[in-house]
Amino acid sequence: MLNALIVGASGYAGAELATYLNRHPEVNLATLAVSAKSEDAGKLLSDLYPQLKGRIDLALHGMTDPQALAEQHDVVFLATAHEVSHDLAPIFLSAGCTVFDLSGAYRVNDPEFYTNYYGFTHQHTDWLAKAVYGLAEWQAEKIQTAQLIAVPGCYPTAAQLALKPLLDRQLLNTDFWPVINATSGVSGAGRKASLKTSLCEVSLQPYGIFTHRHQPEIATHLGTPVIFTPHLGDFPRGISETITCQLTQTLSREEIAAIFHQAYDGQPLVRIYDEGVPALKSVVGLPYCDIGFAVEGQYLILVSVEDNLLKGAASQAVQCLNIRFNFSSTLSLL
Amino acid sequence: MLNALIVGASGYAGAELATYLNRHPEVNLATLAVSAKSEDAGKLLSDLYPQLKGRIDLALHGMTDPQALAEQHDVVFLATAHEVSHDLAPIFLSAGCTVFDLSGAYRVNDPEFYTNYYGFTHQHTDWLAKAVYGLAEWQAEKIQTAQLIAVPGCYPTAAQLALKPLLDRQLLNTDFWPVINATSGVSGAGRKASLKTSLCEVSLQPYGIFTHRHQPEIATHLGTPVIFTPHLGDFPRGISETITCQLTQTLSREEIAAIFHQAYDGQPLVRIYDEGVPALKSVVGLPYCDIGFAVEGQYLILVSVEDNLLKGAASQAVQCLNIRFNFSSTLSLL
Amino acid sequence: MLNALIVGASGYAGAELATYLNRHPEVNLATLAVSAKSEDAGKLLSDLYPQLKGRIDLALHGMTDPQALAEQHDVVFLATAHEVSHDLAPIFLSAGCTVFDLSGAYRVNDPEFYTNYYGFTHQHTDWLAKAVYGLAEWQAEKIQTAQLIAVPGCYPTAAQLALKPLLDRQLLNTDFWPVINATSGVSGAGRKASLKTSLCEVSLQPYGIFTHRHQPEIATHLGTPVIFTPHLGDFPRGISETITCQLTQTLSREEIAAIFHQAYDGQPLVRIYDEGVPALKSVVGLPYCDIGFAVEGQYLILVSVEDNLLKGAASQAVQCLNIRFNFSSTLSLL
Amino acid sequence: MLNALIVGASGYAGAELATYLNRHPEVNLATLAVSAKSEDAGKLLSDLYPQLKGRIDLALHGMTDPQALAEQHDVVFLATAHEVSHDLAPIFLSAGCTVFDLSGAYRVNDPEFYTNYYGFTHQHTDWLAKAVYGLAEWQAEKIQTAQLIAVPGCYPTAAQLALKPLLDRQLLNTDFWPVINATSGVSGAGRKASLKTSLCEVSLQPYGIFTHRHQPEIATHLGTPVIFTPHLGDFPRGISETITCQLTQTLSREEIAAIFHQAYDGQPLVRIYDEGVPALKSVVGLPYCDIGFAVEGQYLILVSVEDNLLKGAASQAVQCLNIRFNFSSTLSLL
Repeated sequence: MLNALIVGASGYAGAELATYLNRHPEVNLATLAVSAKSEDAGKLLSDLYPQLKGRIDLALHGMTDPQALAEQHDVVFLATAHEVSHDLAPIFLSAGCTVFDLSGAYRVNDPEFYTNYYGFTHQHTDWLAKAVYGLAEWQAEKIQTAQLIAVPGCYPTAAQLALKPLLDRQLLNTDFWPVINATSGVSGAGRKASLKTSLCEVSLQPYGIFTHRHQPEIATHLGTPVIFTPHLGDFPRGISETITCQLTQTLSREEIAAIFHQAYDGQPLVRIYDEGVPALKSVVGLPYCDIGFAVEGQYLILVSVEDNLLKGAASQAVQCLNIRFNFSSTLSLL
Repeated sequence: MLNALIVGASGYAGAELATYLNRHPEVNLATLAVSAKSEDAGKLLSDLYPQLKGRIDLALHGMTDPQALAEQHDVVFLATAHEVSHDLAPIFLSAGCTVFDLSGAYRVNDPEFYTNYYGFTHQHTDWLAKAVYGLAEWQAEKIQTAQLIAVPGCYPTAAQLALKPLLDRQLLNTDFWPVINATSGVSGAGRKASLKTSLCEVSLQPYGIFTHRHQPEIATHLGTPVIFTPHLGDFPRGISETITCQLTQTLSREEIAAIFHQAYDGQPLVRIYDEGVPALKSVVGLPYCDIGFAVEGQYLILVSVEDNLLKGAASQAVQCLNIRFNFSSTLSLL
Repeated sequence: MLNALIVGASGYAGAELATYLNRHPEVNLATLAVSAKSEDAGKLLSDLYPQLKGRIDLALHGMTDPQALAEQHDVVFLATAHEVSHDLAPIFLSAGCTVFDLSGAYRVNDPEFYTNYYGFTHQHTDWLAKAVYGLAEWQAEKIQTAQLIAVPGCYPTAAQLALKPLLDRQLLNTDFWPVINATSGVSGAGRKASLKTSLCEVSLQPYGIFTHRHQPEIATHLGTPVIFTPHLGDFPRGISETITCQLTQTLSREEIAAIFHQAYDGQPLVRIYDEGVPALKSVVGLPYCDIGFAVEGQYLILVSVEDNLLKGAASQAVQCLNIRFNFSSTLSLL
Repeated sequence: MLNALIVGASGYAGAELATYLNRHPEVNLATLAVSAKSEDAGKLLSDLYPQLKGRIDLALHGMTDPQALAEQHDVVFLATAHEVSHDLAPIFLSAGCTVFDLSGAYRVNDPEFYTNYYGFTHQHTDWLAKAVYGLAEWQAEKIQTAQLIAVPGCYPTAAQLALKPLLDRQLLNTDFWPVINATSGVSGAGRKASLKTSLCEVSLQPYGIFTHRHQPEIATHLGTPVIFTPHLGDFPRGISETITCQLTQTLSREEIAAIFHQAYDGQPLVRIYDEGVPALKSVVGLPYCDIGFAVEGQYLILVSVEDNLLKGAASQAVQCLNIRFNFSSTLSLL
């Protein structure tokens, strides 16, 4: 039985983590922590999320001594901002905990990445070098021996799962940068008061064009540049990505399907559509990434959908835990 | 041509007022003001409301000297919190402006009302005594000679328009307190950052049960107690009220319809449904209050819908202006 | 292991039943049936509900011989229209199956009820007399020995769970008929093409005022008349009911809470709010009924919320199955 | 005063046309027609659209004799399916009416277009040759003398208004086909019962990938191929298009803005964003197309939004009427 700590448990991804870990047969969800300065410290998680009433009535611990917490837990999930994860992860790692970081702080091993795209100098390059990128379907071997798993960003998960099988076989013309148009639910902005996420104000709109940090994360891990345009949708959860790319050779629908099946058959949390393309609702509340496509001549359009809080955050983190500790990969997820 | 000032123009009702007054042929929309401390001061109204781009590109004036503004305007609309209206109205009134106050500060002539339900001692009881309640269809005569018009609350407008024709004829058993269940769009909470109005958090829920200030406003103006339960709906605009009451005598559907037609025929902004009951969408974005009903034995159920920002605020204020200055009552509204 | 059949599996409640039964450790979900004339016959359930892809890829059997099906199954869930349930239930019952009927066909033992409110003469009064009303928290003893369990309607479940603890103790003045204002999600109208449920057309609106069949269902089972006004909400799932009633004696908030706790402590699927009232989102996708209240003098306002497809249909049916076969009452539900 | 007829007045675009024409000072909205077989024939338009109650209480005429109608009207708006427009337009044109066709039947002068993309042989190639494409901002001169104006499709309007200023100056690399990702509100599917547009079923999803008829319409009128991927959004109205293209030369943000201003200054219904990109809400319910952009190296991303029923249909048709008859181009629109 693994003793688990979630830091940042009051956020949307944190609450989803709590739900999965609470029902996980190999995990004891011991502590839910938030910043000691948070106004939520001392409340029950179910005060914030009444749907959890009677299910997870644990109090939110206002964390003052991470060192002490480290000693009491085997596994730590950081559902925190990247600055916070950057500072906290080494404390837990040094104490021997296995850390699953849901922030961007350890996703790319090259420290330059942080100077260039996050605007700070990474202070823990030793841990950064050892961090394993937790794209679960592609990194299982590395995850099994990792102590620090950097769970991918929400947009990058859906994009990479769709593009990797083709890129790895050199089937995409990388001179035609894949055009990734992605639309995310409002929960992607986090649980906080903001006029921008007000029901009266939200309206479909691109944002962060050419500047979103997930663009270099995708490009770095795929090893090829992409054009990534995120949009804020007017729904609470889920991400849908429509990816336009160019093939290096003519491929039939069947040939492309076969490539995806070869990549993902045996991977229960990626579902391939042989016909049609997935709708967002197919994955909302579920730990899947669903992938469909259409092809016409040299052009291929991929459609990849996931729940931004689940396969794009919490469920992928638990999937990594399952892989890391040799549990069934879908344990507590389905 | 009337020179008009809107104070609180950055809010949802303020922006609707600006839209109506901007196209009003007898009004010059001279100044949009906000609190000098507002972070919106200096911005264009169309920066906040991009739908107004090219239509109302007026700057939001950070008000420091209301006295000076008073001298430059003939009519003033206060789309401000009741504490602000309470203090500002006398300044504009003393300078001779006609004031349309959309807050609760002057809606009931009895100062005790404020002590009891608003928790403060009213400081301007002379103006309070002279204020006219702007329930447009019922107060036209008084509005025509008023200097201070207190525009009714959103919930009270829909409730009173439905109940008054029956109460005035003693057709309702007042021992059975009318049960008013009302659901409002999120815009009723105003334009401000709040977790409560986040698209991810909003969910149909009653609030302010037995304690909402619109309950005594309705009861006082109707002269009879009511049970008023407001709900927050998961849509941006509109109010739907379902009112259960008991008749003092058996009345047919046709008799009830006739009573409503007698009350409102000739009133273009109240529409009576001879069959069925109105849906919210019938009035969203429009200056109407729509009323329908069903009767069974001694019980009568009234359904009254309006746009909370329009007939429940801005359009009723402009309707009062039209009445006050002898314009057609729907000028600029339809 | 119980062999289970769902008739009407293509509908919203049917698909929820399939999800619960598919993961139920004591049930083998053997057959999903639909009308032989349905255009869905032959499709996979996951063709209709892509979220079930890879989870429930069972084909929808176009039923031509219910007799033959009866012999192959132990338990039958009828998620069908009341006319269909009326005819089918006896076939399965005669073959010895235990039947859980989600329609209105067997909810009231008195045949007159059907003549009066459903407009037909009940043809199976013997089975009707034996049917047990499946309001799970209140009928456990009878359910344990029943062969035909008539699962309550969605609205009646939420209303009765809120009112019964008070009515049973004679704490409500029944001369003041409880005023039940209820708002349901669009899924309550079923899965079918209709302009009324189009995203472009749906808008908060009362319907079936004084005429909805759930009014006599509630009144009959509570033994007291009620005024029931259902509304169509603009959301997919969930029911929120706001019930205004009059107490026979003054009761404090604490006294009322104690009454509810006495009724439901030990019942894991009814959650009582000691403070505040529940929002709809607290129960969407979950098998709970959440109840809160506010009291002021002689008036009590109850707020009761549930997922119309779950506690109002599918999860309550499975709860009845669990009770009937002596499984834990929440097995497969939480 | 022009006597106007709308055929297909019961649909969403038809009702918007009726609203504009009803308040148009130079138009007498004489007749609203629907198919004689329509179940809406004989109803009032306000029976279908209660928001129009008291404003447009005209009956829907079940059309049996278009010839006779032709003689009674000066201008005819066809808000009908393309097959219907194809057959009806010549009847009205021969009688001397000016026809504004909102369907695809006359949008491309080359009859081959219909063989290739609509699957039928055009029977009225004489009228087809004379038809003028009503992209209002670009075709004013031709519209002024046209008898048949083919109002552009909803998607093509937003796409062309964004791309034409750049393409006309050879600033886009046409070897890199512009990637148009567009999301439309559900009203684009028309007013009819369909499971696909049910509030319970709608969910963000691409459709018609590589096969939507608006792709060749855009490509033909722009004179360059494009990749067009439409999506069904989960909102009632509006279209947002995100267009990724490649510049032939480096251009600064200011240079691009200047090109758009040169194209559209003086065109009140196209609004250019010098900073940021537009959100959908900026245009819902309004007759504008709003255009913004972002540039990075050789890549340019254009964002173009409009109300699909207005600038994408009804308001552009009225704009064409205004141009055709020398009225102010925004008459009755703003």
